[in-house]
Amino acid sequence: MSEEKSRLDVVGIGNALVDVLTHEPDEFVTEQNLVKGSMTLIDEDRAHELYNAMAPATEVSGGSAANTVIGVASFGGSGAYIGKVRDDQLGEIFAHDLKALGVEFEVVRAPEGDPTGRCLILVTPDGQRTMSTYLGASVSLSPEDVDPGLIARSRILFLEGYLWDPPSAKAAMTRAAELATGDDQRVALTLSDSFCVDRHRDSFLELIDTHVDVLFANYDEILSLYQTDSLETAIEQVRRSVPITAVTHSAHGSIIVVDDAEIQVPAEPTEVVDTTGAGDLYAAGFLYGLARGYDLKECGWLGSLAASEVISHMGPRPEIDLTDLLE
Amino acid sequence: MSEEKSRLDVVGIGNALVDVLTHEPDEFVTEQNLVKGSMTLIDEDRAHELYNAMAPATEVSGGSAANTVIGVASFGGSGAYIGKVRDDQLGEIFAHDLKALGVEFEVVRAPEGDPTGRCLILVTPDGQRTMSTYLGASVSLSPEDVDPGLIARSRILFLEGYLWDPPSAKAAMTRAAELATGDDQRVALTLSDSFCVDRHRDSFLELIDTHVDVLFANYDEILSLYQTDSLETAIEQVRRSVPITAVTHSAHGSIIVVDDAEIQVPAEPTEVVDTTGAGDLYAAGFLYGLARGYDLKECGWLGSLAASEVISHMGPRPEIDLTDLLE
Repeated sequence: MSEEKSRLDVVGIGNALVDVLTHEPDEFVTEQNLVKGSMTLIDEDRAHELYNAMAPATEVSGGSAANTVIGVASFGGSGAYIGKVRDDQLGEIFAHDLKALGVEFEVVRAPEGDPTGRCLILVTPDGQRTMSTYLGASVSLSPEDVDPGLIARSRILFLEGYLWDPPSAKAAMTRAAELATGDDQRVALTLSDSFCVDRHRDSFLELIDTHVDVLFANYDEILSLYQTDSLETAIEQVRRSVPITAVTHSAHGSIIVVDDAEIQVPAEPTEVVDTTGAGDLYAAGFLYGLARGYDLKECGWLGSLAASEVISHMGPRPEIDLTDLLE
Repeated sequence: MSEEKSRLDVVGIGNALVDVLTHEPDEFVTEQNLVKGSMTLIDEDRAHELYNAMAPATEVSGGSAANTVIGVASFGGSGAYIGKVRDDQLGEIFAHDLKALGVEFEVVRAPEGDPTGRCLILVTPDGQRTMSTYLGASVSLSPEDVDPGLIARSRILFLEGYLWDPPSAKAAMTRAAELATGDDQRVALTLSDSFCVDRHRDSFLELIDTHVDVLFANYDEILSLYQTDSLETAIEQVRRSVPITAVTHSAHGSIIVVDDAEIQVPAEPTEVVDTTGAGDLYAAGFLYGLARGYDLKECGWLGSLAASEVISHMGPRPEIDLTDLLE
């Protein structure tokens, strides 16, 4: 089987970020005018200001779609990632951590422009994470960075909603979705954040209607998408547009919505240390299952399993081989 | 009390490094021709080669003496640190993590030369750490980087044995020791590593004879220093040269050797996840106690307490306020 022709379970496209994690009290989140549990975009000056105020930190590779592809690889699946970093030390870290798990990293490290993006993450005593993202080099991801040959190899193309913020990255994501039209290909999207949905509702709805086969949303995001307070209403709407939707609701588990059914999947109980990456790893388990032909309930269970591992420690990526959890 | 005149509990001088930590099987340590549990100096090419072979990693600020000063600060003590980084992203991380706990960082970030040093740390399933250090900018620490005014403010000057490897850093350390001659000042040294002792035995012995008031060594290091297999022999030798010696012996606890006594201090039981920083944090607790007038047995107990915290998780620095452990 030649390298050119081998299929990839999941090709992800997203903001390539290094996470900078600290433990902080709730008061710090308030003092910094952040909305607990959400993601705020910040510029480089604000990133320096916030970082200077933060406690000693740990640096680990992150980025929502990258975390998902890493999770797929950790289950033994194959993956590739499209995203943009600079040729700086954080970019080296980001590229290393993908390649170390065998994930193909497709975009060259830019020799000029903004530095590698980072996500400053405040983890409060309840395990909730509040994120401030300086996109850096991610802003310049563009349609030319999307290799049609790579997209053609994907069983599932996974799109990160956060990428909808920078305009040229949005165009890259749209281009990727337009390329993934094979009979045996699926396009998956995560809505990422309810404020992100708020910023881009109309174009998200259009993308969902025209391209998306698998949608990931948490409770807040799906309600925000359809501007309703009723989950039932949101579910009725989404099932008209998307073949498969997984609605996650933290410790309450998830609901998989298809044309003619709603499948309840319990969360896997664990002690919550840091919720960073919970949604990303749910998607990883789910998509690994889908690519490998598991039924939808099993896909949801794989998602719960992967999410429970990542919230049991600091950081957005699994600390063990997820295949170990399958035993 | 003006800033110039305020006393500092501990001023540390050492190799300024960012740690790059991965979980690896024992076979990986063997394949890479490393000696388990020790520290090997490597050049930049070898650092890239080893890093490329390593699993996804976590980056955290490290450096032996820096970890110790951070530990002192975490107990509520005051500290400053002398060491050299570049003006790159890893240098920014290193400087941030010191300043975030109120540690004064005295050396400017060099605008040119080698990048910030890093220590590639392989943590095996038994929690043992094996380190490969690329010194980077640390190599160029020099006597001019030692501010006499800062040394004058120290109650304890803490020297890292690892710094004996790069010649100009050795000169910086000697200069600092020569400056710390106040009646109420002490000079402390950690031997760092038995191979490091092997490389520099004679000059270590001279430094110990002429300048050192407090010596930290583990079992292997003190035996290597006096080229003996007998702890009793080593203890008899060291008590003729040094007023206070703390000999650590992992889970067996430590022995504090003074002129007329040997004080046994038990280790604080804990589950070992990663021994990185164990000796550094033992020194932190001990020196905090010494600077604040605790008796020697209490100093040893503070050392055991701090060491037990740091080995209970990945990484070389405490994850909680060490003052919390005192309650």
